[in-house]
Amino acid sequence: MRQSVENAVAVCPVEVAVAVLGGSWKLTVVKHLTGGTMRFGELRRAVGPVTPRVLTRQLRDLEADGIVSRTVFAEVPPRVEYALTELGETLRPAVVWLDEWGAAYADREVSQGRP
Amino acid sequence: MRQSVENAVAVCPVEVAVAVLGGSWKLTVVKHLTGGTMRFGELRRAVGPVTPRVLTRQLRDLEADGIVSRTVFAEVPPRVEYALTELGETLRPAVVWLDEWGAAYADREVSQGRP
Repeated sequence: MRQSVENAVAVCPVEVAVAVLGGSWKLTVVKHLTGGTMRFGELRRAVGPVTPRVLTRQLRDLEADGIVSRTVFAEVPPRVEYALTELGETLRPAVVWLDEWGAAYADREVSQGRP
Repeated sequence: MRQSVENAVAVCPVEVAVAVLGGSWKLTVVKHLTGGTMRFGELRRAVGPVTPRVLTRQLRDLEADGIVSRTVFAEVPPRVEYALTELGETLRPAVVWLDEWGAAYADREVSQGRP
């Protein structure tokens, strides 16, 4: 278990969720993978302004935490595919809920003139 | 609007939620405030191993993002109380859901011998 997750386990369950999902782009990656298996390049284009280095690190964390699976196909060049694990699939309701909440939050901020 | 939230608005709604709630201790603070108004010292004891400096910074972010209200009572010494705003209250279902998810995640990791 990653150290930050292990620390959170000793503190509070909601903090465990934050330790697993709280990093930048992680929930956005999970959101896009709810649509099915994707390759690194597809993910990178879908997520948007993320560098390959940061996306690689976040995917590695999500893999270590059991949320995402990484499959390497022995082709030339090698093909690498990412998908949600069974555990990752359990996050679907949270992603939908937080996506809606975030959209309403953004609308509210913009309409109140605090862009 | 804080810069990280503003950046997220331009990217993806779920990233807006992460920008507002993703920082350490923020969802734990929201979770404890669902129980009602609390003072700084009460929050600090409830949240656990957080330093006063970090808790102050996270509370200031949550206040800037419209999630938490801060009321100062002109007493000697001054009394400061924190509470969820109406917008903060809308997070109640997410906190409950993520708290349960985090608890199940921790149980699963410990039972699979990956403490």
